[in-house]
Amino acid sequence: MRAYLGIDGGGTHTRSLLISETGNILGRAVVGPSNVQQISSQALRSTLQQLLNLTFINLPDEIESIASCFGLAGAASAHNKEDIHATLGSLIPVPSEPPKLTSDAHIALVGALGDCPGLMLAAGTGSICLGRDANGIIHQTGGLGAVFDDLGSGFWIGRKAVQMSFQESDGRRPSGPWQSNVLRLLSCNTIEQLQCKLKTGDINNSHVAALAPMVMQLSLEGVSVAADILNNAVRELVAVISTTYGKVKLRTAHLVLVGGLLEQSELLRDQLSAALKIEEPEIQIQKSLMCPIAGAVVIACQESNNSVPNELEQALIALGTDSSVITR
Amino acid sequence: MRAYLGIDGGGTHTRSLLISETGNILGRAVVGPSNVQQISSQALRSTLQQLLNLTFINLPDEIESIASCFGLAGAASAHNKEDIHATLGSLIPVPSEPPKLTSDAHIALVGALGDCPGLMLAAGTGSICLGRDANGIIHQTGGLGAVFDDLGSGFWIGRKAVQMSFQESDGRRPSGPWQSNVLRLLSCNTIEQLQCKLKTGDINNSHVAALAPMVMQLSLEGVSVAADILNNAVRELVAVISTTYGKVKLRTAHLVLVGGLLEQSELLRDQLSAALKIEEPEIQIQKSLMCPIAGAVVIACQESNNSVPNELEQALIALGTDSSVITR
Repeated sequence: MRAYLGIDGGGTHTRSLLISETGNILGRAVVGPSNVQQISSQALRSTLQQLLNLTFINLPDEIESIASCFGLAGAASAHNKEDIHATLGSLIPVPSEPPKLTSDAHIALVGALGDCPGLMLAAGTGSICLGRDANGIIHQTGGLGAVFDDLGSGFWIGRKAVQMSFQESDGRRPSGPWQSNVLRLLSCNTIEQLQCKLKTGDINNSHVAALAPMVMQLSLEGVSVAADILNNAVRELVAVISTTYGKVKLRTAHLVLVGGLLEQSELLRDQLSAALKIEEPEIQIQKSLMCPIAGAVVIACQESNNSVPNELEQALIALGTDSSVITR
Repeated sequence: MRAYLGIDGGGTHTRSLLISETGNILGRAVVGPSNVQQISSQALRSTLQQLLNLTFINLPDEIESIASCFGLAGAASAHNKEDIHATLGSLIPVPSEPPKLTSDAHIALVGALGDCPGLMLAAGTGSICLGRDANGIIHQTGGLGAVFDDLGSGFWIGRKAVQMSFQESDGRRPSGPWQSNVLRLLSCNTIEQLQCKLKTGDINNSHVAALAPMVMQLSLEGVSVAADILNNAVRELVAVISTTYGKVKLRTAHLVLVGGLLEQSELLRDQLSAALKIEEPEIQIQKSLMCPIAGAVVIACQESNNSVPNELEQALIALGTDSSVITR
């Protein structure tokens, strides 16, 4: 029996799915982060080894070979891509084809759209838009990093919240809801402690991005600065979509929204949808076909066979679109 | 003979000045960075040891005791302030009083204003405004870190330039001067390389801040985006000055401009001066009295004696205001 292994590695969790060519789930697991630009090679290796040990724990004897695809955050622009790639194959405990290494955004695109042309906006801690044109070529806009790019992302929104709290703390901004909420949500007693934890990395980009729901809540409560932040985020997200739409050269295009920021916030989805109707009326928002990890399995399968067996495809679609659910 | 030791530690250089109570320079040196939040404790210790070895190389026998002040970037909010403080004393090779540890902004304020009330805006890689009120109390605005604050700083301006180059590279912005200039100035061949070096820290905050003169140049050449970036920087800098002015409760206040960004760019100084005339006409820009390292010596002296001997003060003023000059 042939089997396929998909890995979805992000800044918070890394998930695996081992599935047979007939669509039987053979193993699933979830461990900690594997953003290749935020952890050492050694930590990456140990995280993936732990993940694969859990995935292959009940390995059926009849597996003959495995094709795999690792979609890891930060992999697209990693300087040590070849080293990472060399590591991956040695971690799989059964005979396997050379693993495919790609970005988490790429597997999300394939999960979102299957083989169809279209657009995917992923917005969680970071933000990126990928589009697949009629020739199957993938175009990227944004997603070049938290500090210098990823406009409109969770980190981008959370950073504004931290900025507002800093400005409240030293009188640049009148007293308001920012300082108290940010300190509470990031478990700090004082602004000095917050500043210090941000510098040491005790508070990381994911923690900052987790402030985004607070900004949405303040916006709903009528805090105008919060509403401005969200309006700007929506404008930036529309800009990356518009640019990608221009690149794929499709008259009408389907757009799938993925990532924690968009999945958790109806407010942001509604605002984005309204702005798109005005700016790009030819773009139609649709639901994701599969979850990102199913996208990784599809890529593994295509790299190995050039096609995905129908039974397997149906099983991947049946998994649903929420990769955070871990059931067997 | 008594002597005083001043240390000015920043993100790029660390400078020392050893001077006798009669104003004779006994030692001066300059080594690499000592921002306590960007380098390890071990690296800080070795940098300061190297600096002091160079400073005390021709130590006259007649020195009986030394009072010292270390003004180090990041020291105000360092989590390991007590550890750093404990290290400092052990590095001085002659009997010394317990060293004073403070921030580089504090010594710059004392250098800029001497004992007078007033305001100091420091803008280099970072930005901060300090004000001393009529009771001698020091008030701070801004300066809470590169990624989340330090609005209008060199890093803030340089980050916008990197953002523009990213946006040019993937079509969010039409082709223009940003990508080619940023890649050249940061010694990168491709946007991928730039992105990678920013993530690994091969390109650090100082390198990004060093893009600010390019933005000034583009503004002078009529690039409207560059002019917008500088206008926004000036607006942010005026905001920190205004807030600090409100805190010091002085009717008219002197303001001293220090730091590489303001010292190097006449354009930015002129724009800031024009904006201040409109926003805060009671603030008068004046020249710095002494350089930051002289401010460190003044603090060392005041902590030890409560006053600065006249001869010493005149010698410190005679040093000039440019601490980058290393002469004996």
